[in-house]
Amino acid sequence: MKNTNLPSSVRRRLPRYYRFARELLGADVLRISSGELSSMMGITASQIRQDLSLVGEFGLQGYGYNVKDLYSGIGEIVGANRNYNTVIAGLTGIGLALAKHPVFDLRCVTLRALFDDALAGTETADLTVLPMSYFERWCTENETDIAVLAVPREMAVETAGAAVRAGVSGIWNFTGEDIRADRAKNDVAVVDINLHDCLMGLCCEIHNGGRQ
Amino acid sequence: MKNTNLPSSVRRRLPRYYRFARELLGADVLRISSGELSSMMGITASQIRQDLSLVGEFGLQGYGYNVKDLYSGIGEIVGANRNYNTVIAGLTGIGLALAKHPVFDLRCVTLRALFDDALAGTETADLTVLPMSYFERWCTENETDIAVLAVPREMAVETAGAAVRAGVSGIWNFTGEDIRADRAKNDVAVVDINLHDCLMGLCCEIHNGGRQ
Repeated sequence: MKNTNLPSSVRRRLPRYYRFARELLGADVLRISSGELSSMMGITASQIRQDLSLVGEFGLQGYGYNVKDLYSGIGEIVGANRNYNTVIAGLTGIGLALAKHPVFDLRCVTLRALFDDALAGTETADLTVLPMSYFERWCTENETDIAVLAVPREMAVETAGAAVRAGVSGIWNFTGEDIRADRAKNDVAVVDINLHDCLMGLCCEIHNGGRQ
Repeated sequence: MKNTNLPSSVRRRLPRYYRFARELLGADVLRISSGELSSMMGITASQIRQDLSLVGEFGLQGYGYNVKDLYSGIGEIVGANRNYNTVIAGLTGIGLALAKHPVFDLRCVTLRALFDDALAGTETADLTVLPMSYFERWCTENETDIAVLAVPREMAVETAGAAVRAGVSGIWNFTGEDIRADRAKNDVAVVDINLHDCLMGLCCEIHNGGRQ
């Protein structure tokens, strides 16, 4: 590994490089040029060469990248070789769809518990749903790494607070409420998926002629 | 409006500013300082002043921003004053959750049709679900602006192709498949929500100590 103090812009692109490397390996592609990656990924070859040169040594000039090295090198930096115990709070709407979504087939992520009052006691994704009142204690006692928050927006701040008190390392926030302030205070990583902002961003791109 | 050729980094932040301006107005807050916005939004006051100075004239030094002007000025740039006819293709999992999600309460977005073979003929979100075979023709005949793709990944490319042929202006892509190449070729705006990449990005932040 060449450099772990990567610019945040490069680090944000790494999961996508990692996904492409995994899929190339799955298709038995062992070498790939920056030009081929460029047409697959829709970003320029020079951007790719620059990004990957910051990440490590994965190939020789004119010979292409070694895909296996790419996969393991990027995997090391993104932390794909650890295990992240994950729970979902809130199963109305998006939460339930997430619980059944192939995203939790990611090797490094293990879905350990689901919390929802209306569905408590029922089975989803091979787990028995627990009531929300168990959330903080369960997360505390079971070394939870990631809490996915899909509770209604008005419960977002309270549930994020419980997750932080329970010592989670990361919050994946689908509630529509901004909970970044909690992160700053508590050194918890937060990734927000704000659907309103995303859809408005698409409207903005359309309105401005598809330019990015 | 001061400038529509905004840097893409600033334009990407506008939906979030727009949402905060709307919520401030809803709470009858008519003036706000960059410092107050900073603590609400979790970004620095100088970043806010710089972003908003590129967008327009919304206040006086030491007096704060006029929230009404912020809301209407940013709304004009993000295209919030138009109407975007929107359809969802695929209602297994995320698609069904989206159809019922408050994101479609956005004033400028109108959910017009839903497509899914398994649910065809049933009612969801006050719409009768149509079979996928109607998708391209319906979108062509009904001036569809946005197609939300939530079909299984193996149907993503085919469905994106149909959306592009039907003349949509934007694709909101939840399939997990990259369809950016279509956009480049056809000048269709694409916003990808790749859940694998998002979750891996959170793992990466955790692994790297929550730094952004």
